Amino acid sequence: MLLLVLDLLGIAVFAVSGALVAVRQRLDIIGVLVLATVTGLGGGWIRDVLIGDTPPASLEDWRYLLVPVAAGLLAFWFHPAIERMDRLVIVFDAFGLGLFGVAGALKAAEHGLGPIPAAILGMVTCIGGGLLRDVLAGQVPVVLSSGELYAIPALAGSAVAAIGFELGAPTAAVALPAAALITGWRLLAISRGWRAPVPGVRRT
Amino acid sequence: MLLLVLDLLGIAVFAVSGALVAVRQRLDIIGVLVLATVTGLGGGWIRDVLIGDTPPASLEDWRYLLVPVAAGLLAFWFHPAIERMDRLVIVFDAFGLGLFGVAGALKAAEHGLGPIPAAILGMVTCIGGGLLRDVLAGQVPVVLSSGELYAIPALAGSAVAAIGFELGAPTAAVALPAAALITGWRLLAISRGWRAPVPGVRRT
Amino acid sequence: MLLLVLDLLGIAVFAVSGALVAVRQRLDIIGVLVLATVTGLGGGWIRDVLIGDTPPASLEDWRYLLVPVAAGLLAFWFHPAIERMDRLVIVFDAFGLGLFGVAGALKAAEHGLGPIPAAILGMVTCIGGGLLRDVLAGQVPVVLSSGELYAIPALAGSAVAAIGFELGAPTAAVALPAAALITGWRLLAISRGWRAPVPGVRRT
Repeated sequence: MLLLVLDLLGIAVFAVSGALVAVRQRLDIIGVLVLATVTGLGGGWIRDVLIGDTPPASLEDWRYLLVPVAAGLLAFWFHPAIERMDRLVIVFDAFGLGLFGVAGALKAAEHGLGPIPAAILGMVTCIGGGLLRDVLAGQVPVVLSSGELYAIPALAGSAVAAIGFELGAPTAAVALPAAALITGWRLLAISRGWRAPVPGVRRT
Repeated sequence: MLLLVLDLLGIAVFAVSGALVAVRQRLDIIGVLVLATVTGLGGGWIRDVLIGDTPPASLEDWRYLLVPVAAGLLAFWFHPAIERMDRLVIVFDAFGLGLFGVAGALKAAEHGLGPIPAAILGMVTCIGGGLLRDVLAGQVPVVLSSGELYAIPALAGSAVAAIGFELGAPTAAVALPAAALITGWRLLAISRGWRAPVPGVRRT
Repeated sequence: MLLLVLDLLGIAVFAVSGALVAVRQRLDIIGVLVLATVTGLGGGWIRDVLIGDTPPASLEDWRYLLVPVAAGLLAFWFHPAIERMDRLVIVFDAFGLGLFGVAGALKAAEHGLGPIPAAILGMVTCIGGGLLRDVLAGQVPVVLSSGELYAIPALAGSAVAAIGFELGAPTAAVALPAAALITGWRLLAISRGWRAPVPGVRRT
């Protein structure tokens, strides 16, 4: 029950970020709702399609579909107010990141994938929705170009969860520290301004 | 047999729209054929991959592959003539929309999905091909940004079909009114200039 | 064993091309690694998802994941040197093309698809990674717009492999000439400047 609420909260925050991108790119109501849904649920869909667990659970359960639609409608009407809460959205997003990475890695591991693929699929769960959002909105994906520490903490925490699963540790003992690693590292990176490396400039 | 012909006709019209976008974006022959195929068949492929019905039927049946290739070649050679028939293309497209939405929703419902997911997958069948077309052509998807009433009628008719299926109504009794709702609403929206809502502008 | 080495070599060359696009588009380290992986493995993933063979083998085998990551890191650090070897990259790419097309078509045929779908899936194996690379990098896919003879040799050789399989010919007797057709045609097209047709310009 707690996990369901956390999961839906993570989806809602991701969906709000999708809806705000749609509003900024001047899409219409369908654009806002599609981007909210795809950003909230798309990472899990890519993971489930790749591991062959179809239809994705979040496509069969109306509660998982209702949340991004509601978040999209809220953003459609109240986007100026939500834009002003951007710090809050970033913090919630960091918690969503921790949850999505760990849940994604554990789901892949439970489907029999080894620790390296499971860690990668944890990261895919985290960044897949944002990739689809940005591609549909006609912009280069932020997560690939911004130099922010976003996918790297997600990958690290997903790896911790996948390795813990491989070693037979109890789920809770694995999930909590792994999620804390992702969320903590992400929040520290924001507050301290830590950056991911970018390629060196070619000498001309 | 009639259904097969209608289905292939719908695919052909969608494929022509894909090929015309490719011609306008100055793609080469492969670009024209890939965009024709993806626009004609891509919505069904996304639906089938999400519900786990792979390989998609239209990938196994050479008639479904021949139609978009033929439509693409026609558009490659005769695009100026086809561009002049744009009103006709729009009308046929509205019929394709009705067919794709109802067929997509019913297929999802037959695979055990509830009415809400089935309605969404009906809409995905309608707009998925156009999404792939525009993303591959390097433009923001028209269906997300134009403010046209396109996805909304598709979703409404798909919902009617999915609810009718859930209630156990005979397929024909459900499919015809649902398709008529989509096509009729779409044609009315074009002729009367009805528009989908867009987000309000932020006061600066 | 030889086939594994060839396969990994093909993936490495494709991955390098993905990483170089990421460097040119000024993406960060995650962008470089994601584009390298997606370009090296993405075509096979699309094929496997469409034929329903999930999880894709290359997602379960750490060697297939290590190669694009290593290629991406090499390109991240040494991209000026690799850019200077662009002729060599193009030649290796032509060999990768032959390998991917034949392997993709044969895999689809072994999964029960007829020659036409199998030939198309061979081409998808060849161009899918590049399509994902360019879409994620925010550019119109080169393979759809450049007018180069790239997908057409891939489709032709894939068709030869698929038809040979259908006729019951031994795999080696089919695979070698089909791959030679792709690679040879591609290399000839580069050296002689052969081009794919583009749509005629509209008279205004």
